Amino acid sequence: MSFFANLFGKKETSASVARDRLKLVLAHERASNSLPYMEDMKAELMEVIKKYTKVKDIRISSQNNQNIDILEMEIVLK
Amino acid sequence: MSFFANLFGKKETSASVARDRLKLVLAHERASNSLPYMEDMKAELMEVIKKYTKVKDIRISSQNNQNIDILEMEIVLK
Repeated sequence: MSFFANLFGKKETSASVARDRLKLVLAHERASNSLPYMEDMKAELMEVIKKYTKVKDIRISSQNNQNIDILEMEIVLK
Repeated sequence: MSFFANLFGKKETSASVARDRLKLVLAHERASNSLPYMEDMKAELMEVIKKYTKVKDIRISSQNNQNIDILEMEIVLK
């Protein structure tokens, strides 16, 4: 269950803080170099999210961990 | 680091098994009911992935954990 707990960070205990949140994680494990189309694909994925959701707050982070590139988008929905 | 380790399952130890893999995780924490547009949005996200990548193998799973809906797509790239 730790995977799910980590998805949205620390567990909040009160039911009163329940809210709609969306998290998109895109991870790319690469055997060699980055794929040339990756940036375009990320941008297009973000467009889809923005098209469907009413975004109240959005946080985007990307990181690199050894041979894994990770894009995270956390969206608080209206 | 356990979050990253979990993203692609068990760690394979040999460099010879390195390959390009992509993982998309879409998690929705909902305060109340599911959002009506969620299925359409998921389908469109998949279309973006398929448009950009040359898919050798794809696994899609979805699960529900308390108030979190999770869609996972794991794609082995050519």
